[in-house]
Amino acid sequence: MQNSSDKFNNYIYGKNSVLETISQNPKRINKIFFSDGINFDNRLKKIKELADKNSIQVQFTNLNKFNKYFQENSDKIQNINFQGVIASVSPVEYLDFDEFLNKKSDDFRKIVILDGVEDPHNFGAILRTLAAAKYDAVIVPKHRSCPITSTVEKTSCGAINYIPVIKTNSLPTIADILKKNDWWIIAADGQSKDNYFDIDYKNMNFAVILGAEGEGVSKTLLNKADFKVKIPCAIESLNVSATCAVIVYESIRQILQK
Amino acid sequence: MQNSSDKFNNYIYGKNSVLETISQNPKRINKIFFSDGINFDNRLKKIKELADKNSIQVQFTNLNKFNKYFQENSDKIQNINFQGVIASVSPVEYLDFDEFLNKKSDDFRKIVILDGVEDPHNFGAILRTLAAAKYDAVIVPKHRSCPITSTVEKTSCGAINYIPVIKTNSLPTIADILKKNDWWIIAADGQSKDNYFDIDYKNMNFAVILGAEGEGVSKTLLNKADFKVKIPCAIESLNVSATCAVIVYESIRQILQK
Repeated sequence: MQNSSDKFNNYIYGKNSVLETISQNPKRINKIFFSDGINFDNRLKKIKELADKNSIQVQFTNLNKFNKYFQENSDKIQNINFQGVIASVSPVEYLDFDEFLNKKSDDFRKIVILDGVEDPHNFGAILRTLAAAKYDAVIVPKHRSCPITSTVEKTSCGAINYIPVIKTNSLPTIADILKKNDWWIIAADGQSKDNYFDIDYKNMNFAVILGAEGEGVSKTLLNKADFKVKIPCAIESLNVSATCAVIVYESIRQILQK
Repeated sequence: MQNSSDKFNNYIYGKNSVLETISQNPKRINKIFFSDGINFDNRLKKIKELADKNSIQVQFTNLNKFNKYFQENSDKIQNINFQGVIASVSPVEYLDFDEFLNKKSDDFRKIVILDGVEDPHNFGAILRTLAAAKYDAVIVPKHRSCPITSTVEKTSCGAINYIPVIKTNSLPTIADILKKNDWWIIAADGQSKDNYFDIDYKNMNFAVILGAEGEGVSKTLLNKADFKVKIPCAIESLNVSATCAVIVYESIRQILQK
């Protein structure tokens, strides 16, 4: 995992990240920096409009001065392509698990639990897929997970503003509570005999547990799973964000085709 | 796209990348460098065994001396985690399109065409998914595509050794030739009314065309497509490697469930 300090989790960059954040969650944005003399395309224009509408301070400056900060706090080298825009933001607020669980919902709900996914690119990619598929939340452990850094926000393309993140001290406890509340637990497990398309994702609340690459889902959590599913795979393993996309969209397919 | 020179496309690193390459394609490997005084785990042991078996030269050295080269030629900063092993390799050989097309096959064949995917992480992730799903090849244009750099090899986790890559001067020409040879062309298109699960992937040779993020598949290629399919998506778009995973595995599901 990269070194990250709170200080630098407070900047996001890139047209999509900033646009999604200012559209969905303008209160998170403290200030917007545009590159000096930049040509305003549609997305940048929209950002400027929304900044004015929400009375957010705007400054034109040489964005390269941010390079050093981002380099020290991200896994990108040299000159990052900020795409002409950086925003200073308040950290993402985590959703409380009890609040989530007790929220009334007319539809069945579906979430993903990440057991030890520490790579910021994978975490960002997973958030984007879950937002695209309108999943209801993602649960991560307090330890052995990736903090929401600017790399995560950038990779998620601002999807972090659509998908609530819940942090917990204990995934097994969360799994137990979900089960007691009539949720079903599905674990991705390369050793399973069932394929991911063999189970029925309709008409139930469910949580899909995805493990770290190499290690997979921990034994404790596997033992709590109602279903274990694999993705047919001719090589050692799929990337965890690809695994997420495949299983999540199989559930969406079944629900839409029912 | 990163700066890459041929010289530095000739190194790969990481246990999985090196192990997959030496297992599948030992002739590509010229020499293997292990970190001085490293503890040999199972994967490193296997690499050493295969090196001995294939009479590949092995050297123990301080791998940090490679850092500078990789930094100048990759998009990672500071100290890369080589996981104790680097291999000097011959470049990946591209497969000839005519040879691929004329190869006899008892099964229907399935390929992916990448129209302007320039990001090395996406390209590597796509190669890994295609190798996992046992697709037959990937076709990329000579221009506006990502060269096979060490970042691509690393992201693909060595999958590049399982999935042939074909380079072409003209994707529209390739699409025309495929159609004349009874292949079906499926284009990913966010504007389509059909979902990716609405079409039948069984009992035909087909090519799935994926476009660059933002721009999508070019109009010329869209016009040649027999099917256009979208992935239901609540945000602006899915990442191209997630799109690839979802469509490719829907085809696998249909074929396995038939």
